[in-house]
Amino acid sequence: MARIVMKFGGTSVGDIERIKNVAQLVKKEVDAGNEVAVVVSAMSGETNKLVDYCRQIAPLHDAREYDAVVATGEQVTIGLLALALQEIGCNARSWCGWQIPIRTDGAHSKARIMEIDTELMLERMAQGQVPVIAGFQGIGPDNRITTLGRGGSDTSAVAMAAALHADRCDIYTDVDGVYTTDPRIVPKAKKLQKITYEEMLESASLGAKVLQTRSVEMAMKHRVRLQVRSTFAPDTPGTLVCDEDEIVEKELVSGIAYSRDEAKITLVKVSDRPGVAASIFGPLTDGNINVDMIVQNVSDDGKATDLTFTVAKGDLQRGVKLLEENKESLGFQDLIADANVVKISVIGVGMRSHAGVAQTMFKALADKGINIQVISTSEIKVSVLIAEEYTELALRALHTAYGLDAA
Amino acid sequence: MARIVMKFGGTSVGDIERIKNVAQLVKKEVDAGNEVAVVVSAMSGETNKLVDYCRQIAPLHDAREYDAVVATGEQVTIGLLALALQEIGCNARSWCGWQIPIRTDGAHSKARIMEIDTELMLERMAQGQVPVIAGFQGIGPDNRITTLGRGGSDTSAVAMAAALHADRCDIYTDVDGVYTTDPRIVPKAKKLQKITYEEMLESASLGAKVLQTRSVEMAMKHRVRLQVRSTFAPDTPGTLVCDEDEIVEKELVSGIAYSRDEAKITLVKVSDRPGVAASIFGPLTDGNINVDMIVQNVSDDGKATDLTFTVAKGDLQRGVKLLEENKESLGFQDLIADANVVKISVIGVGMRSHAGVAQTMFKALADKGINIQVISTSEIKVSVLIAEEYTELALRALHTAYGLDAA
Repeated sequence: MARIVMKFGGTSVGDIERIKNVAQLVKKEVDAGNEVAVVVSAMSGETNKLVDYCRQIAPLHDAREYDAVVATGEQVTIGLLALALQEIGCNARSWCGWQIPIRTDGAHSKARIMEIDTELMLERMAQGQVPVIAGFQGIGPDNRITTLGRGGSDTSAVAMAAALHADRCDIYTDVDGVYTTDPRIVPKAKKLQKITYEEMLESASLGAKVLQTRSVEMAMKHRVRLQVRSTFAPDTPGTLVCDEDEIVEKELVSGIAYSRDEAKITLVKVSDRPGVAASIFGPLTDGNINVDMIVQNVSDDGKATDLTFTVAKGDLQRGVKLLEENKESLGFQDLIADANVVKISVIGVGMRSHAGVAQTMFKALADKGINIQVISTSEIKVSVLIAEEYTELALRALHTAYGLDAA
Repeated sequence: MARIVMKFGGTSVGDIERIKNVAQLVKKEVDAGNEVAVVVSAMSGETNKLVDYCRQIAPLHDAREYDAVVATGEQVTIGLLALALQEIGCNARSWCGWQIPIRTDGAHSKARIMEIDTELMLERMAQGQVPVIAGFQGIGPDNRITTLGRGGSDTSAVAMAAALHADRCDIYTDVDGVYTTDPRIVPKAKKLQKITYEEMLESASLGAKVLQTRSVEMAMKHRVRLQVRSTFAPDTPGTLVCDEDEIVEKELVSGIAYSRDEAKITLVKVSDRPGVAASIFGPLTDGNINVDMIVQNVSDDGKATDLTFTVAKGDLQRGVKLLEENKESLGFQDLIADANVVKISVIGVGMRSHAGVAQTMFKALADKGINIQVISTSEIKVSVLIAEEYTELALRALHTAYGLDAA
């Protein structure tokens, strides 16, 4: 017997038939003797509709009212799924965030979970009742409904699993696991049986959209074993996101991620004096623009250098404007902006103990004639910025170079 | 300055443009220096959609889950209306039933309001904030969402008005007031400036669908002055439902109502012994079938009599079945069922002090050759059952006979 949290996303509960299907999946786990709690999203399309209503009324809306409106999507699903479970003889009841309660901070529309009261829920689960919990929502210090931001239901599920000391948190979605890279681009991509939190975190933040970054961070912090599974192929084994110790045969590289959401800015002939980087990134930080990869060349003459960095594509125009406005005080000669770039990242905890991973990457790209514009590395990843048109070519070359191709 | 509760039904908040229009109506009352609280229904169609979802999953559903699902409709509207008010510079916030709280009993899907905590709300209203309150919902003793049954938002509004000691409760709807009779049938029907609670209650329970019966009962009990107004013609004066003392020029008859939701059952040759009526209506009461008009003839021979009564049309088949099953123990000879009837009622508090009201009715119907099947009277109304095909003819004849026709 295990204690399991099962989480179903919007497409998994997209209509009445699918909700009934989810009820069957839940019942199967219950019948197998497990204690089960369920976390659900809104039916697909509902949240978008509600967000759109708010925007039509007020483009800059009061986040507290926005939260009251959009949280209704999940409330509908929990009631319907509880009914569907009861209908097939499974004892179940719905729980809104405020009923449990799931206490959050007061940052409406992007709240963080502070505390979950599980006493009553554990008691009911021990009696065989399945709690059906609204994801994405909680209650703030002002007794008003809060939401956790888009994709927040994953975070709700992991937080519930941590609070309930669950043995596993199964995230049911419309893909059947985590792959070595995007299978739409690289047909030889393989599904991973297991992946470490650290690797998943790098993948999530680098553009692989299987799990929300915050949910993986939380799973890692609380050591919640996360399993990504398909609602529509529930018998196919998924991917387990777990601690490094659980993975016996570690691959050097577990996956290759890419992100098209990058743009490059180069400041030409920035005066090379202490504090220049801080003075340049100050205005961007104030404007709420995140800077990602940064490269500063050594200056030839000790007087001026070129500084290159990347920002999110959506922030490019605003970033350029902010820098141009401060051109004189910052003291650069030219600004070159380029949105035609992609970031490719090789990820693997095995890198920690193996040299040569970066070298394999550089060589594989060089062999295909792909020029590397910027490089950045962390303990378990190497990222490069290249021209966007090489995305597919680079992914396939790297997938082969690291021996990831399926037989 | 007055304290006003404004209530808007589903068609009044049916889409985003209409919600913005409602915000303008609210702002107008605020700008006039009034303290305003608003109660709203779900956007038209939403509640039906949610009810249908529940039915698709489970025909006999857990009323607690049903309530959690259908209460979301009002929650969407309060958030959106609060946003719309803020957008035009009006301080507003939304309140779910559980936030206020509006405490109800535990009769899910048909709960009754027990207590409303208004302290915080009155404080905010004094500071110029408009509370936008979800109608139709409350919170039960088990900390779960309850709903008040269809049309319950009227009841919520009146209960709020009573709890807030409001000077007036304005019910905005898609008709502009209460008429002497149905204007679709009698073009000469007049809008009433004022009507007493008692008369409105009779009209509401007799089929005039302007206000929910329970809301009128509650208004009468707490002496809440109710005004029925049109959202779409807000400058047209509506109808005030108020205490008899407020009406200076009382009409003998204020209106003529009709209900097609009646069916007639006649039991032929029922043995005429003490307790026979009780033994007949016992099975019907047990089957949750309400009996309305009852006529028992004097028996010719002291042995057997005919008993006629009416039930709701939807209950006719079930009622007949129940009676036939108990035919022997009840001891009747024949059962005649007739769904082809309509109940016409003449209503007016003036009847209390005037004789001849019933006589005028009987004569007017006789003049048109309409046969009266059953008669029942109360202090302020006379009802007759006639064949359904005479509905329009009877309404017009009576409207003229009581001098109600518009000039």
